[in-house]
Amino acid sequence: MAANLYFAEQGDYLPCPTIDDVFANVEQKISEYGVVPVENSTEGAVNNTQDCLIDSQLAIVGEVIVPIVHDFLVNKALKNTAQIERIVSHKQSLAQCRNWLMSNFPHTQLQDVSSNGQAAQLASEDASTAAIAGALAGKMYGLKSLHSAIQDKSNNSTRFLVLAENEKATTPSGADKTSLLIYTHNRPGALFRILQPFEELGVSLSKIETRPSKIEAWEYVFFIDFDGHVEDKLVIELFARLEQCTAEIKVLGSYAKFSSEN
Amino acid sequence: MAANLYFAEQGDYLPCPTIDDVFANVEQKISEYGVVPVENSTEGAVNNTQDCLIDSQLAIVGEVIVPIVHDFLVNKALKNTAQIERIVSHKQSLAQCRNWLMSNFPHTQLQDVSSNGQAAQLASEDASTAAIAGALAGKMYGLKSLHSAIQDKSNNSTRFLVLAENEKATTPSGADKTSLLIYTHNRPGALFRILQPFEELGVSLSKIETRPSKIEAWEYVFFIDFDGHVEDKLVIELFARLEQCTAEIKVLGSYAKFSSEN
Repeated sequence: MAANLYFAEQGDYLPCPTIDDVFANVEQKISEYGVVPVENSTEGAVNNTQDCLIDSQLAIVGEVIVPIVHDFLVNKALKNTAQIERIVSHKQSLAQCRNWLMSNFPHTQLQDVSSNGQAAQLASEDASTAAIAGALAGKMYGLKSLHSAIQDKSNNSTRFLVLAENEKATTPSGADKTSLLIYTHNRPGALFRILQPFEELGVSLSKIETRPSKIEAWEYVFFIDFDGHVEDKLVIELFARLEQCTAEIKVLGSYAKFSSEN
Repeated sequence: MAANLYFAEQGDYLPCPTIDDVFANVEQKISEYGVVPVENSTEGAVNNTQDCLIDSQLAIVGEVIVPIVHDFLVNKALKNTAQIERIVSHKQSLAQCRNWLMSNFPHTQLQDVSSNGQAAQLASEDASTAAIAGALAGKMYGLKSLHSAIQDKSNNSTRFLVLAENEKATTPSGADKTSLLIYTHNRPGALFRILQPFEELGVSLSKIETRPSKIEAWEYVFFIDFDGHVEDKLVIELFARLEQCTAEIKVLGSYAKFSSEN
């Protein structure tokens, strides 16, 4: 859905079973672009994508925000919900429907699978398995939707990133966003000193996230999104000031901000 | 293990199937204290615990850090690893062993269950199921450890919080930590203005995390840990300055910092 929205249904799409595979396919030039989920408005960051961004040399060249509607899907052969032995979905979708599941199926086994598409497939093969997935997946696998929009927040959307090789980096569009990864020395005030140049120059942070550095236990890297493009004068000045913070900075990409009127 | 370490094996322990249940048991006075995982040095924050802290009125009264060693455990009846059809564990343990699993069992189904104890139990009931869990769980359920210490980082530990009702809040020990939750208005520079008083007063942040606010999509709350106790003079001054930031602050607790010599 995200890829369809971003590429205006012009793409030749290759489905990948995992997020790691999307990165690998673009790195190995099997695909020109990759689309991965990075954050959900209810459930937060998609850790696996963040960890892949730490290691990957790919650039972020775009973003797209997709409203998420989860349906409770069952096999058409199911007679009675009491026959449901397990409910399958991607772990983030299970988390997004936590309250509904606790109210309606408090004792049913929950099993996380690699994607909501796989969940729908499993439900199509076995009537004792129910799936949480989008209506589109339910349709593809001939499932029946017993309940629609079961997610805990009605205003639930997921932000996706569009990945490509560095040379596909985009020029300023006028309304851009830049994503950075910052490694700091584990020293008092390190984060404050990183934020100081943003404040001084009036550059607006739209997000800050921490993840374990994977290098040293209890050390962190910061993921920062801010308004602007690496080719903007103000952003060039920002980087000059950030360099004095003795932090290591990796630019993940500058790209046009998502707008639903695109 | 964490509870044993914190309470010096003096406790009368009640196992709970989920993190939500630990909070509920203490809130309903069924248990005096609760112990929940909050962060792993490789995998990062335990989102479910953070989300429970947002809603709960319980106080954090202690912390304990436990080194994590994961074993690959199989049923003693297993003849050949080719017979393994699925590998079960808590989702965070699966994530902590991602590289090992991708090298050794790239095509085997991974299934997350509610705890590593449950994983070991499942493996004891079915030879086609392998479990990732600690050696202690393997011993309890009569499993064979095929590989020890399969986690991706050898220096892997998990931080646990000890929860209790507010009146159990502790007095300063001399080496304390305080955990806060801060809600800010989604305004440029909001985070910078929160960090400014810490910097001015030389109060050292040991952690900062963001989570979706659960109130408004794409709004965040900040989890901040810093050195000091709410009864310290410096911290009282810190709160006075933070109050001018128009941020809403919830003190989660002040408690003695973990020391392995405890």
